[in-house]
Amino acid sequence: MAETVHMIDSEVFLAFSTYATIVILKMMLMSLMTSYFRLTKQVFSNLEDTNLAKTTEDRKKLVRVDPDVERVRRCHLNDLENIVPFVVIGLLYALTGPDLSMALLHFRVFVGSRFIHTVAYVMALPQPTRALAFGVGLFISFSMAYRVLTTALFL
Amino acid sequence: MAETVHMIDSEVFLAFSTYATIVILKMMLMSLMTSYFRLTKQVFSNLEDTNLAKTTEDRKKLVRVDPDVERVRRCHLNDLENIVPFVVIGLLYALTGPDLSMALLHFRVFVGSRFIHTVAYVMALPQPTRALAFGVGLFISFSMAYRVLTTALFL
Amino acid sequence: MAETVHMIDSEVFLAFSTYATIVILKMMLMSLMTSYFRLTKQVFSNLEDTNLAKTTEDRKKLVRVDPDVERVRRCHLNDLENIVPFVVIGLLYALTGPDLSMALLHFRVFVGSRFIHTVAYVMALPQPTRALAFGVGLFISFSMAYRVLTTALFL
Repeated sequence: MAETVHMIDSEVFLAFSTYATIVILKMMLMSLMTSYFRLTKQVFSNLEDTNLAKTTEDRKKLVRVDPDVERVRRCHLNDLENIVPFVVIGLLYALTGPDLSMALLHFRVFVGSRFIHTVAYVMALPQPTRALAFGVGLFISFSMAYRVLTTALFL
Repeated sequence: MAETVHMIDSEVFLAFSTYATIVILKMMLMSLMTSYFRLTKQVFSNLEDTNLAKTTEDRKKLVRVDPDVERVRRCHLNDLENIVPFVVIGLLYALTGPDLSMALLHFRVFVGSRFIHTVAYVMALPQPTRALAFGVGLFISFSMAYRVLTTALFL
Repeated sequence: MAETVHMIDSEVFLAFSTYATIVILKMMLMSLMTSYFRLTKQVFSNLEDTNLAKTTEDRKKLVRVDPDVERVRRCHLNDLENIVPFVVIGLLYALTGPDLSMALLHFRVFVGSRFIHTVAYVMALPQPTRALAFGVGLFISFSMAYRVLTTALFL
Protein backbone atom coordinates (compact mmCIF):
# COMPACT_ATOMS: atom_id res chain seq x y z
CA MET A 1 0.00 0.00 0.00
CA ALA A 2 3.06 2.25 -0.30
CA GLU A 3 1.80 4.07 -3.37
CA THR A 4 -1.67 4.61 -2.02
CA VAL A 5 -1.43 8.35 -2.52
CA HIS A 6 -1.13 7.92 -6.24
CA MET A 7 -4.06 5.55 -6.25
CA ILE A 8 -6.50 8.37 -5.52
CA ASP A 9 -5.65 9.85 -8.93
CA SER A 10 -5.84 6.55 -10.71
CA GLU A 11 -8.34 5.24 -13.22
CA VAL A 12 -9.38 2.67 -10.61
CA PHE A 13 -10.39 5.48 -8.27
CA LEU A 14 -12.25 7.29 -11.05
CA ALA A 15 -14.08 4.07 -11.85
CA PHE A 16 -14.95 3.57 -8.18
CA SER A 17 -16.16 7.15 -7.99
CA THR A 18 -18.40 6.66 -11.03
CA TYR A 19 -19.95 3.33 -10.05
CA ALA A 20 -20.38 4.28 -6.39
CA THR A 21 -22.23 7.44 -7.41
CA ILE A 22 -24.47 5.53 -9.83
CA VAL A 23 -25.43 2.86 -7.31
CA ILE A 24 -26.02 5.43 -4.55
CA LEU A 25 -28.28 7.39 -6.91
CA LYS A 26 -30.18 4.18 -7.62
CA MET A 27 -30.64 3.73 -3.86
CA MET A 28 -31.91 7.30 -3.47
CA LEU A 29 -34.49 6.70 -6.20
CA MET A 30 -36.15 4.24 -3.81
CA SER A 31 -37.13 7.24 -1.66
CA LEU A 32 -38.85 8.82 -4.62
CA MET A 33 -40.52 5.52 -5.52
CA THR A 34 -41.85 5.23 -1.97
CA SER A 35 -43.20 8.80 -2.14
CA TYR A 36 -44.79 8.06 -5.51
CA PHE A 37 -46.61 4.97 -4.20
CA ARG A 38 -47.65 6.80 -1.01
CA LEU A 39 -49.17 9.66 -3.00
CA THR A 40 -50.84 7.64 -5.76
CA LYS A 41 -52.21 5.01 -3.35
CA GLN A 42 -52.88 7.51 -0.55
CA VAL A 43 -51.05 5.54 2.14
CA PHE A 44 -49.19 7.48 4.83
CA SER A 45 -47.23 6.90 8.04
CA ASN A 46 -47.90 10.28 9.64
CA LEU A 47 -51.15 12.10 10.30
CA GLU A 48 -49.63 15.42 9.20
CA ASP A 49 -48.97 13.95 5.73
CA THR A 50 -52.69 13.47 5.03
CA ASN A 51 -53.68 17.12 4.76
CA LEU A 52 -55.32 16.68 1.36
CA ALA A 53 -58.19 14.80 3.02
CA LYS A 54 -60.98 16.95 4.42
CA THR A 55 -62.25 15.53 7.69
CA THR A 56 -60.17 14.23 10.58
CA GLU A 57 -61.88 10.85 10.19
CA ASP A 58 -60.82 10.64 6.55
CA ARG A 59 -57.30 11.63 7.45
CA LYS A 60 -56.91 8.95 10.11
CA LYS A 61 -57.96 6.32 7.58
CA LEU A 62 -55.04 7.26 5.32
CA VAL A 63 -52.47 6.40 8.01
CA ARG A 64 -52.16 2.75 7.12
CA VAL A 65 -49.87 0.06 5.80
CA ASP A 66 -49.94 -1.01 2.16
CA PRO A 67 -48.25 -4.12 0.74
CA ASP A 68 -46.81 -2.33 -2.30
CA VAL A 69 -45.34 0.50 -0.22
CA GLU A 70 -43.87 -2.02 2.23
CA ARG A 71 -42.32 -3.92 -0.68
CA VAL A 72 -40.52 -0.80 -1.92
CA ARG A 73 -39.41 -0.02 1.63
CA ARG A 74 -37.99 -3.53 2.12
CA CYS A 75 -36.09 -3.13 -1.15
CA HIS A 76 -34.75 0.24 0.04
CA LEU A 77 -33.60 -1.22 3.37
CA ASN A 78 -31.93 -4.11 1.54
CA ASP A 79 -30.10 -1.51 -0.57
CA LEU A 80 -28.87 0.24 2.59
CA GLU A 81 -27.69 -3.08 4.01
CA ASN A 82 -25.75 -3.98 0.86
CA ILE A 83 -24.81 -0.83 -1.05
CA VAL A 84 -23.32 0.99 1.95
CA PRO A 85 -20.91 -1.91 2.69
CA PHE A 86 -20.00 -2.00 -1.02
CA VAL A 87 -19.13 1.70 -0.98
CA VAL A 88 -16.98 1.43 2.16
CA ILE A 89 -15.15 -1.73 1.14
CA GLY A 90 -14.93 -0.54 -2.47
CA LEU A 91 -13.21 2.69 -1.44
CA LEU A 92 -10.59 0.80 0.60
CA TYR A 93 -10.26 -1.75 -2.22
CA ALA A 94 -9.63 1.02 -4.77
CA LEU A 95 -6.83 2.30 -2.53
CA THR A 96 -5.06 -1.09 -2.54
CA GLY A 97 -4.16 -0.58 -6.21
CA PRO A 98 -5.92 -3.47 -7.96
CA ASP A 99 -5.69 -4.04 -11.72
CA LEU A 100 -8.08 -1.76 -13.57
CA SER A 101 -9.74 -4.65 -15.40
CA MET A 102 -10.28 -6.59 -12.17
CA ALA A 103 -11.63 -3.51 -10.39
CA LEU A 104 -14.02 -2.72 -13.26
CA LEU A 105 -15.23 -6.32 -13.19
CA HIS A 106 -16.06 -6.01 -9.48
CA PHE A 107 -17.76 -2.62 -9.79
CA ARG A 108 -19.80 -3.48 -12.89
CA VAL A 109 -21.01 -6.85 -11.64
CA PHE A 110 -22.01 -5.34 -8.28
CA VAL A 111 -23.90 -2.40 -9.77
CA GLY A 112 -25.58 -4.68 -12.33
CA SER A 113 -26.61 -7.13 -9.62
CA ARG A 114 -28.24 -4.35 -7.57
CA PHE A 115 -30.24 -3.06 -10.53
CA ILE A 116 -31.47 -6.60 -11.21
CA HIS A 117 -32.22 -7.00 -7.49
CA THR A 118 -34.38 -3.86 -7.50
CA VAL A 119 -36.35 -4.88 -10.60
CA ALA A 120 -36.82 -8.39 -9.20
CA TYR A 121 -37.99 -7.02 -5.83
CA VAL A 122 -40.33 -4.27 -7.01
CA MET A 123 -41.91 -6.40 -9.74
CA ALA A 124 -42.03 -9.50 -7.50
CA LEU A 125 -40.30 -11.66 -10.12
CA PRO A 126 -40.22 -15.40 -9.34
CA GLN A 127 -37.34 -16.56 -7.17
CA PRO A 128 -34.44 -17.28 -7.31
CA THR A 129 -33.90 -14.12 -9.42
CA ARG A 130 -33.75 -11.79 -6.44
CA ALA A 131 -31.83 -14.24 -4.26
CA LEU A 132 -29.19 -14.69 -6.96
CA ALA A 133 -28.82 -10.94 -7.51
CA PHE A 134 -28.44 -10.48 -3.74
CA GLY A 135 -25.89 -13.31 -3.54
CA VAL A 136 -23.78 -12.01 -6.41
CA GLY A 137 -23.60 -8.55 -4.81
CA LEU A 138 -22.61 -10.07 -1.47
CA PHE A 139 -19.92 -12.18 -3.14
CA ILE A 140 -18.41 -9.12 -4.86
CA SER A 141 -18.18 -7.25 -1.55
CA PHE A 142 -16.60 -10.28 0.14
CA SER A 143 -14.10 -10.59 -2.71
CA MET A 144 -13.05 -6.95 -2.35
CA ALA A 145 -12.86 -7.29 1.45
CA TYR A 146 -10.58 -10.30 0.98
CA ARG A 147 -8.19 -8.22 -1.10
CA VAL A 148 -8.26 -5.34 1.41
CA LEU A 149 -7.49 -7.66 4.32
CA THR A 150 -4.77 -9.62 2.51
CA THR A 151 -3.10 -6.47 1.10
CA ALA A 152 -3.31 -4.13 4.06
CA LEU A 153 -3.87 -6.11 7.26
CA PHE A 154 -2.82 -4.13 10.33
CA LEU A 155 -4.37 -5.40 13.55
CA MET B 1 -9.28 15.19 -11.43
CA ALA B 2 -5.50 15.32 -11.97
CA GLU B 3 -4.82 17.26 -8.80
CA THR B 4 -7.04 15.12 -6.62
CA VAL B 5 -4.20 14.36 -4.24
CA HIS B 6 -3.93 17.99 -3.28
CA MET B 7 -7.65 18.19 -2.77
CA ILE B 8 -7.49 16.10 0.39
CA ASP B 9 -5.50 18.91 2.02
CA SER B 10 -7.77 21.62 0.75
CA GLU B 11 -10.23 23.85 2.55
CA VAL B 12 -13.01 22.11 0.64
CA PHE B 13 -11.99 18.81 2.21
CA LEU B 14 -11.78 20.38 5.67
CA ALA B 15 -15.26 21.84 5.15
CA PHE B 16 -16.59 18.45 4.03
CA SER B 17 -14.97 16.84 7.05
CA THR B 18 -16.61 19.34 9.39
CA TYR B 19 -20.13 19.24 7.94
CA ALA B 20 -20.12 15.47 7.44
CA THR B 21 -19.15 14.97 11.09
CA ILE B 22 -21.83 17.39 12.30
CA VAL B 23 -24.62 15.78 10.30
CA ILE B 24 -23.52 12.26 11.27
CA LEU B 25 -23.54 13.32 14.93
CA LYS B 26 -27.07 14.65 14.43
CA MET B 27 -28.07 11.26 13.03
CA MET B 28 -26.53 9.45 16.01
CA LEU B 29 -28.52 11.64 18.40
CA MET B 30 -31.65 9.93 17.03
CA SER B 31 -30.47 6.74 18.79
CA LEU B 32 -30.31 8.61 22.08
CA MET B 33 -33.71 10.20 21.43
CA THR B 34 -35.20 6.75 20.80
CA SER B 35 -33.67 5.46 24.05
CA TYR B 36 -34.99 8.49 25.92
CA PHE B 37 -38.55 7.95 24.68
CA ARG B 38 -38.34 4.20 25.32
CA LEU B 39 -37.23 4.75 28.93
CA THR B 40 -39.55 7.64 29.81
CA LYS B 41 -42.60 6.05 28.15
CA GLN B 42 -41.60 2.48 29.13
CA VAL B 43 -41.92 1.03 25.64
CA PHE B 44 -39.52 -1.71 24.61
CA SER B 45 -38.82 -4.08 21.72
CA ASN B 46 -37.11 -6.82 23.71
CA LEU B 47 -38.24 -8.69 26.81
CA GLU B 48 -34.73 -8.49 28.30
CA ASP B 49 -34.95 -4.67 28.25
CA THR B 50 -37.86 -4.61 30.70
CA ASN B 51 -36.00 -5.77 33.81
CA LEU B 52 -37.16 -2.83 35.90
CA ALA B 53 -40.67 -4.29 36.01
CA LYS B 54 -41.31 -6.86 38.73
CA THR B 55 -43.50 -9.66 37.45
CA THR B 56 -43.22 -11.48 34.12
CA GLU B 57 -46.73 -10.34 33.28
CA ASP B 58 -45.77 -6.69 33.81
CA ARG B 59 -42.66 -7.14 31.71
CA LYS B 60 -44.49 -8.62 28.75
CA LYS B 61 -46.84 -5.62 28.72
CA LEU B 62 -43.89 -3.27 28.21
CA VAL B 63 -42.91 -4.96 24.92
CA ARG B 64 -45.15 -2.87 22.73
CA VAL B 65 -45.26 -0.28 19.96
CA ASP B 66 -45.69 3.41 20.70
CA PRO B 67 -46.52 6.10 18.11
CA ASP B 68 -43.94 8.60 19.45
CA VAL B 69 -41.14 6.04 19.48
CA GLU B 70 -42.08 4.92 15.95
CA ARG B 71 -42.02 8.54 14.80
CA VAL B 72 -38.45 9.00 16.05
CA ARG B 73 -37.46 5.70 14.45
CA ARG B 74 -38.92 6.70 11.08
CA CYS B 75 -36.99 9.96 11.30
CA HIS B 76 -33.81 8.02 12.09
CA LEU B 77 -34.32 5.67 9.14
CA ASN B 78 -34.96 8.65 6.86
CA ASP B 79 -31.65 10.09 8.09
CA LEU B 80 -29.86 6.85 7.18
CA GLU B 81 -31.46 6.88 3.73
CA ASN B 82 -30.39 10.47 3.05
CA ILE B 83 -27.36 11.37 5.15
CA VAL B 84 -25.32 8.31 4.18
CA PRO B 85 -25.69 9.09 0.43
CA PHE B 86 -24.74 12.71 1.17
CA VAL B 87 -21.55 11.61 2.93
CA VAL B 88 -20.52 9.24 0.13
CA ILE B 89 -21.31 11.60 -2.74
CA GLY B 90 -19.97 14.59 -0.75
CA LEU B 91 -16.60 12.88 -0.25
CA LEU B 92 -16.26 12.17 -3.97
CA TYR B 93 -17.51 15.68 -4.76
CA ALA B 94 -14.90 17.24 -2.44
CA LEU B 95 -12.22 15.31 -4.36
CA THR B 96 -13.32 16.81 -7.71
CA GLY B 97 -11.98 20.21 -6.61
CA PRO B 98 -15.08 22.42 -6.61
CA ASP B 99 -14.95 26.11 -5.70
CA LEU B 100 -14.87 26.57 -1.95
CA SER B 101 -17.89 28.88 -1.98
CA MET B 102 -19.93 26.46 -4.07
CA ALA B 103 -18.93 23.52 -1.87
CA LEU B 104 -19.79 25.41 1.31
CA LEU B 105 -23.17 26.31 -0.17
CA HIS B 106 -23.91 22.62 -0.83
CA PHE B 107 -22.73 21.43 2.58
CA ARG B 108 -24.49 24.16 4.58
CA VAL B 109 -27.81 23.88 2.79
CA PHE B 110 -27.80 20.09 3.14
CA VAL B 111 -26.95 20.11 6.84
CA GLY B 112 -29.48 22.87 7.50
CA SER B 113 -32.19 20.99 5.60
CA ARG B 114 -31.62 17.85 7.68
CA PHE B 115 -31.85 19.74 10.97
CA ILE B 116 -35.13 21.29 9.79
CA HIS B 117 -36.31 17.86 8.64
CA THR B 118 -35.66 16.38 12.09
CA VAL B 119 -37.47 19.18 13.94
CA ALA B 120 -40.39 18.97 11.49
CA TYR B 121 -40.59 15.19 11.87
CA VAL B 122 -40.23 14.88 15.64
CA MET B 123 -42.58 17.78 16.38
CA ALA B 124 -45.03 16.74 13.62
CA LEU B 125 -45.05 20.21 12.10
CA PRO B 126 -47.67 20.77 9.37
CA GLN B 127 -46.64 19.74 5.89
CA PRO B 128 -45.03 20.69 3.52
CA THR B 129 -42.26 21.68 5.97
CA ARG B 130 -40.82 18.18 6.23
CA ALA B 131 -41.37 17.38 2.55
CA LEU B 132 -39.54 20.56 1.51
CA ALA B 133 -36.62 19.88 3.86
CA PHE B 134 -36.39 16.34 2.48
CA GLY B 135 -36.55 17.62 -1.12
CA VAL B 136 -33.87 20.26 -0.62
CA GLY B 137 -31.50 17.66 0.87
CA LEU B 138 -32.16 15.30 -2.04
CA PHE B 139 -31.57 18.08 -4.55
CA ILE B 140 -28.19 18.95 -2.96
CA SER B 141 -27.05 15.32 -3.19
CA PHE B 142 -28.20 15.10 -6.82
CA SER B 143 -26.34 18.34 -7.62
CA MET B 144 -23.10 16.99 -6.14
CA ALA B 145 -23.57 13.64 -7.92
CA TYR B 146 -24.01 15.55 -11.20
CA ARG B 147 -20.64 17.23 -10.68
CA VAL B 148 -18.93 13.94 -9.76
CA LEU B 149 -20.28 12.19 -12.86
CA THR B 150 -19.52 15.08 -15.23
CA THR B 151 -16.00 15.65 -13.82
CA ALA B 152 -14.83 12.11 -13.32
CA LEU B 153 -16.90 9.72 -15.41
CA PHE B 154 -15.08 6.44 -16.03
CA LEU B 155 -17.37 3.58 -17.01
CA MET C 1 -4.14 18.67 8.80
CA ALA C 2 -1.34 19.90 6.52
CA GLU C 3 0.21 16.48 6.06
CA THR C 4 -3.07 14.73 5.41
CA VAL C 5 -1.81 13.35 2.15
CA HIS C 6 0.82 11.30 3.88
CA MET C 7 -1.75 10.05 6.35
CA ILE C 8 -3.40 7.86 3.72
CA ASP C 9 -0.19 5.80 3.57
CA SER C 10 0.20 5.62 7.31
CA GLU C 11 -0.16 2.74 9.71
CA VAL C 12 -3.17 4.54 11.19
CA PHE C 13 -4.89 4.39 7.83
CA LEU C 14 -3.98 0.72 7.37
CA ALA C 15 -5.38 0.01 10.83
CA PHE C 16 -8.57 1.91 9.99
CA SER C 17 -8.84 0.00 6.74
CA THR C 18 -8.50 -3.33 8.55
CA TYR C 19 -10.93 -2.66 11.39
CA ALA C 20 -13.51 -0.94 9.17
CA THR C 21 -13.51 -3.96 6.83
CA ILE C 22 -13.86 -6.41 9.71
CA VAL C 23 -16.78 -4.59 11.31
CA ILE C 24 -18.54 -4.08 7.97
CA LEU C 25 -18.16 -7.82 7.27
CA LYS C 26 -19.70 -8.51 10.69
CA MET C 27 -22.63 -6.28 9.72
CA MET C 28 -23.08 -8.11 6.41
CA LEU C 29 -23.21 -11.44 8.24
CA MET C 30 -26.51 -10.24 9.78
CA SER C 31 -28.04 -10.56 6.28
CA LEU C 32 -26.96 -14.18 6.12
CA MET C 33 -28.21 -14.79 9.66
CA THR C 34 -31.61 -13.37 8.69
CA SER C 35 -31.73 -15.61 5.61
CA TYR C 36 -30.75 -18.61 7.72
CA PHE C 37 -33.56 -18.00 10.24
CA ARG C 38 -36.07 -17.30 7.46
CA LEU C 39 -35.24 -20.57 5.71
CA THR C 40 -34.98 -22.81 8.78
CA LYS C 41 -38.10 -21.36 10.43
CA GLN C 42 -39.97 -20.88 7.12
CA VAL C 43 -40.85 -17.23 7.74
CA PHE C 44 -40.95 -14.89 4.75
CA SER C 45 -41.82 -11.29 3.88
CA ASN C 46 -42.70 -11.86 0.23
CA LEU C 47 -45.09 -14.31 -1.39
CA GLU C 48 -42.60 -15.07 -4.17
CA ASP C 49 -40.10 -16.33 -1.57
CA THR C 50 -42.37 -19.20 -0.51
CA ASN C 51 -42.16 -21.29 -3.67
CA LEU C 52 -41.15 -24.44 -1.82
CA ALA C 53 -44.70 -24.73 -0.43
CA LYS C 54 -47.19 -26.49 -2.66
CA THR C 55 -50.57 -24.81 -2.49
CA THR C 56 -51.29 -21.07 -2.57
CA GLU C 57 -52.92 -21.39 0.85
CA ASP C 58 -49.76 -22.93 2.32
CA ARG C 59 -47.67 -20.22 0.72
CA LYS C 60 -49.71 -17.36 2.15
CA LYS C 61 -49.28 -18.82 5.63
CA LEU C 62 -45.51 -18.55 5.34
CA VAL C 63 -45.66 -14.77 4.85
CA ARG C 64 -45.55 -13.89 8.53
CA VAL C 65 -43.58 -12.24 11.29
CA ASP C 66 -41.40 -14.26 13.66
CA PRO C 67 -39.86 -12.92 16.91
CA ASP C 68 -36.44 -14.49 16.26
CA VAL C 69 -36.22 -13.09 12.74
CA GLU C 70 -37.31 -9.66 13.99
CA ARG C 71 -34.65 -9.79 16.69
CA VAL C 72 -31.89 -10.39 14.12
CA ARG C 73 -33.34 -7.60 11.95
CA ARG C 74 -33.35 -5.14 14.84
CA CYS C 75 -29.73 -6.04 15.53
CA HIS C 76 -28.90 -5.49 11.86
CA LEU C 77 -30.61 -2.08 11.83
CA ASN C 78 -28.76 -1.11 15.02
CA ASP C 79 -25.52 -2.05 13.24
CA LEU C 80 -26.41 0.22 10.33
CA GLU C 81 -27.20 3.06 12.73
CA ASN C 82 -23.87 2.70 14.56
CA ILE C 83 -21.29 1.08 12.29
CA VAL C 84 -21.88 3.40 9.35
CA PRO C 85 -21.23 6.52 11.51
CA PHE C 86 -18.10 4.82 12.90
CA VAL C 87 -16.78 4.22 9.39
CA VAL C 88 -17.41 7.79 8.25
CA ILE C 89 -16.05 9.48 11.37
CA GLY C 90 -13.21 6.93 11.61
CA LEU C 91 -12.05 7.71 8.07
CA LEU C 92 -11.93 11.45 8.80
CA TYR C 93 -10.31 10.75 12.18
CA ALA C 94 -7.60 8.62 10.52
CA LEU C 95 -6.84 11.58 8.22
CA THR C 96 -6.25 13.93 11.18
CA GLY C 97 -3.04 12.04 12.00
CA PRO C 98 -3.72 10.69 15.51
CA ASP C 99 -1.14 8.63 17.43
CA LEU C 100 -1.13 5.04 16.27
CA SER C 101 -1.67 3.68 19.78
CA MET C 102 -4.62 6.01 20.40
CA ALA C 103 -6.15 5.17 17.02
CA LEU C 104 -5.76 1.43 17.59
CA LEU C 105 -7.39 1.83 21.00
CA HIS C 106 -10.43 3.52 19.40
CA PHE C 107 -10.75 1.02 16.56
CA ARG C 108 -10.29 -2.09 18.72
CA VAL C 109 -12.68 -1.02 21.46
CA PHE C 110 -15.35 -0.07 18.91
CA VAL C 111 -15.09 -3.32 16.94
CA GLY C 112 -15.03 -5.36 20.16
CA SER C 113 -18.09 -3.52 21.50
CA ARG C 114 -20.07 -4.27 18.34
CA PHE C 115 -19.24 -7.99 18.44
CA ILE C 116 -20.37 -8.09 22.09
CA HIS C 117 -23.49 -6.11 21.12
CA THR C 118 -24.39 -8.66 18.44
CA VAL C 119 -23.92 -11.66 20.73
CA ALA C 120 -25.91 -9.92 23.49
CA TYR C 121 -28.71 -9.04 21.08
CA VAL C 122 -29.05 -12.34 19.21
CA MET C 123 -28.77 -14.47 22.36
CA ALA C 124 -30.97 -12.07 24.37
CA LEU C 125 -28.41 -11.83 27.19
CA PRO C 126 -29.63 -10.03 30.33
CA GLN C 127 -29.26 -6.27 30.31
CA PRO C 128 -27.25 -4.09 30.73
CA THR C 129 -24.82 -6.13 28.57
CA ARG C 130 -26.25 -4.90 25.29
CA ALA C 131 -26.83 -1.35 26.54
CA LEU C 132 -23.21 -1.10 27.71
CA ALA C 133 -21.84 -2.45 24.43
CA PHE C 134 -24.01 0.06 22.56
CA GLY C 135 -22.88 2.91 24.83
CA VAL C 136 -19.18 2.11 24.52
CA GLY C 137 -19.45 2.08 20.72
CA LEU C 138 -21.28 5.42 20.75
CA PHE C 139 -18.67 6.93 23.06
CA ILE C 140 -15.82 5.86 20.75
CA SER C 141 -17.50 7.50 17.76
CA PHE C 142 -18.13 10.68 19.77
CA SER C 143 -14.49 10.72 20.88
CA MET C 144 -13.26 10.45 17.28
CA ALA C 145 -15.74 13.12 16.16
CA TYR C 146 -14.41 15.40 18.88
CA ARG C 147 -10.89 15.06 17.50
CA VAL C 148 -12.05 15.64 13.92
CA LEU C 149 -13.92 18.80 14.89
CA THR C 150 -11.15 20.19 17.10
CA THR C 151 -8.40 19.40 14.56
CA ALA C 152 -10.07 20.36 11.32
CA LEU C 153 -13.01 22.66 11.98
CA PHE C 154 -13.92 24.70 8.90
CA LEU C 155 -17.44 26.10 9.02
